[in-house]
Amino acid sequence: MEPYVTVTRRGADRLAHGHPWIYRGDVESAPARVESGDVVTIQDGRRKFLGKAFWSARSKIALRLLTRDEEPVDDDFFAERIRSAIDLRRVAFGDEPAVRLVHGEADLLPGLVADRYGDVAVVQTLVPGTDRRKALIADVLAGELGLRTVVQRNDVRVRELEGLPQEKGVLRGEAPGALEYREGEVRLGLDVLEGQKTGAFLDQRENHLAAGGYARGRCVDCFSYAGGFALQLARRASEVTAVEMQPVAAGLLRGNAARNRAGNLSVVEANAFDWLRDESEKAPSWDLVVLDPPAFAKNKEAVPAARRGYKEINLRAMQILKPGGILVTASCSYHVPEAMLEEIVHEAARDAGRPVQVLERRGAGRDHPVLLGVPETRYLKCFVLRLP
Amino acid sequence: MEPYVTVTRRGADRLAHGHPWIYRGDVESAPARVESGDVVTIQDGRRKFLGKAFWSARSKIALRLLTRDEEPVDDDFFAERIRSAIDLRRVAFGDEPAVRLVHGEADLLPGLVADRYGDVAVVQTLVPGTDRRKALIADVLAGELGLRTVVQRNDVRVRELEGLPQEKGVLRGEAPGALEYREGEVRLGLDVLEGQKTGAFLDQRENHLAAGGYARGRCVDCFSYAGGFALQLARRASEVTAVEMQPVAAGLLRGNAARNRAGNLSVVEANAFDWLRDESEKAPSWDLVVLDPPAFAKNKEAVPAARRGYKEINLRAMQILKPGGILVTASCSYHVPEAMLEEIVHEAARDAGRPVQVLERRGAGRDHPVLLGVPETRYLKCFVLRLP
Repeated sequence: MEPYVTVTRRGADRLAHGHPWIYRGDVESAPARVESGDVVTIQDGRRKFLGKAFWSARSKIALRLLTRDEEPVDDDFFAERIRSAIDLRRVAFGDEPAVRLVHGEADLLPGLVADRYGDVAVVQTLVPGTDRRKALIADVLAGELGLRTVVQRNDVRVRELEGLPQEKGVLRGEAPGALEYREGEVRLGLDVLEGQKTGAFLDQRENHLAAGGYARGRCVDCFSYAGGFALQLARRASEVTAVEMQPVAAGLLRGNAARNRAGNLSVVEANAFDWLRDESEKAPSWDLVVLDPPAFAKNKEAVPAARRGYKEINLRAMQILKPGGILVTASCSYHVPEAMLEEIVHEAARDAGRPVQVLERRGAGRDHPVLLGVPETRYLKCFVLRLP
Repeated sequence: MEPYVTVTRRGADRLAHGHPWIYRGDVESAPARVESGDVVTIQDGRRKFLGKAFWSARSKIALRLLTRDEEPVDDDFFAERIRSAIDLRRVAFGDEPAVRLVHGEADLLPGLVADRYGDVAVVQTLVPGTDRRKALIADVLAGELGLRTVVQRNDVRVRELEGLPQEKGVLRGEAPGALEYREGEVRLGLDVLEGQKTGAFLDQRENHLAAGGYARGRCVDCFSYAGGFALQLARRASEVTAVEMQPVAAGLLRGNAARNRAGNLSVVEANAFDWLRDESEKAPSWDLVVLDPPAFAKNKEAVPAARRGYKEINLRAMQILKPGGILVTASCSYHVPEAMLEEIVHEAARDAGRPVQVLERRGAGRDHPVLLGVPETRYLKCFVLRLP
């Protein structure tokens, strides 16, 4: 029997509203012997059963809901959850080998992230509850998908909030070495273990492909990183400029361009703000612009400055587009929700004096689901716009 | 030189905010000689040029903006606008022959709708400004696309608001007779001139295709109409039930099922509310449910009742889905915006006691663009959800 943790009325209401987290301030009482990573039973002040959850002793989030049913939470429970997550990817993508397999809370597996690249999986166990079970997790993933290797990439700072060390390494199989995966027909290089950053942004995979469908003429990809957008554009455009400031990323980008023999792609090592400003002083000559910047608003306090940043790049992008041009504009700032991004883009459109058509409102790929009622799981927004 | 129409401060602000409509109450003065369908110059109280617009003498919307520039609004102007609209479809869909070619305001062609089915176009001229120019419009469409036939389907009530008669008939070429068009691999019948209703909902075309990608096992399409969703599902599902109450629509549906040799599709002539209620009393046995009801909220007053209706069908749908099941739920009520539909679906999920993953937030197809800052152009919402 799991230890009982009693939550406040506010905590119980939060669960009733569909949210899976209980903050420490809403824990009324917990037994002294309960340890980080234990599965506990949540009850309200009247001892009514509310569900079962992972306990974290350190994090601000004390409880992460696992189930609202009185069911055993054992190895089979976790294996079944992982199988359900894999099933979603099968339904949505068939046998697509480069996908996020498990997306934490949104797959009802709090604190667990797993990505697949062919026969290699990369796992992050971000809370004690999943960290303690990583052998099981690796076994289930490897068994279900016939994987050669499972690695952990737990060298992430968020683990420190949980009192977990930063670490990385092989969990199952042998070190994978340098990998290659595909997004549609585009081949991308990847070092899941040794790369400074992997360069894989699977959440943008479907947006990369969607953007590629609009490419023609002269296209530019700002904040290009490893070239996920730029290489899709290069398949159909006559020329593509990829603007990337970081030398390491520009190196990945050049490597990926060579890998795809993308002779029509030129890499410009520049700050995208500067590049856009310079370009906006010339006559509009671009058919498509991608804006995929890093998160400008890492926290609430940064939102006003972030708004100015998003506004500026979107305005410049509109100024450099020819009539009929396409603007693919993304934001991965959780603190800039879709309605705010739309407002910013609309302000930019008014400043540019151009009407703007919204062709698509996109988010993260379908292997990064959003949990209804849990806004924390929705962070990536991507509009496809046209300036007639 | 066009006649001058002076607008109030509020009217000018509305234009400045990006909206293309001026209501009659915001017209300060207009010359007596100006006629419905004339192009006029809009100015503010200080005679500042604001743009050029169609004038309507009868409608509540007196002015529909055509341009904010001091440019001639002549035949070339309209031809260029139509070419730009066609260009969007080329960029988004290549040579796809079944598309909306012109989507009114959102294509900067207020009061003009045009759909293409192969070598036939169906035109609606909904305001005097476009109605007066329909010969030009038919010529440009036919010329640009090499069409055999252009028909007008102007037997719509909205024209009465403008004092225009209801009419239909051939504008160019010969009567097209019965047609067939495709959505992906699915063939659909259509009589653009004689059909009581055409049965074509091109705005859902991309959603039909997207839903089909998730099909497996037992699928049901509620409010099926001519089967746009059901037939896509039937390509991959083991069995599909299409629920449709209207005998005429059920006839179209059976015809389309036969046309596609969809032997796994059964048509149930029933009220979808009743069917869902009955089914919800059994054990969950469905892998995918589509809810594509007619607009429950035709006006603001109808919103509370509409909410109850949407809530009920979404709750029932959740109750009949197996674990891992997919719910494709749409609303075409303009008065039920996306955030409200999300709220309704979330309420239903709480009542059903099931977490819900949002896989896709979709809208009308990309040939039905939304104009930024003009909420009237955004009416269709479609969520793809999964119940793990």
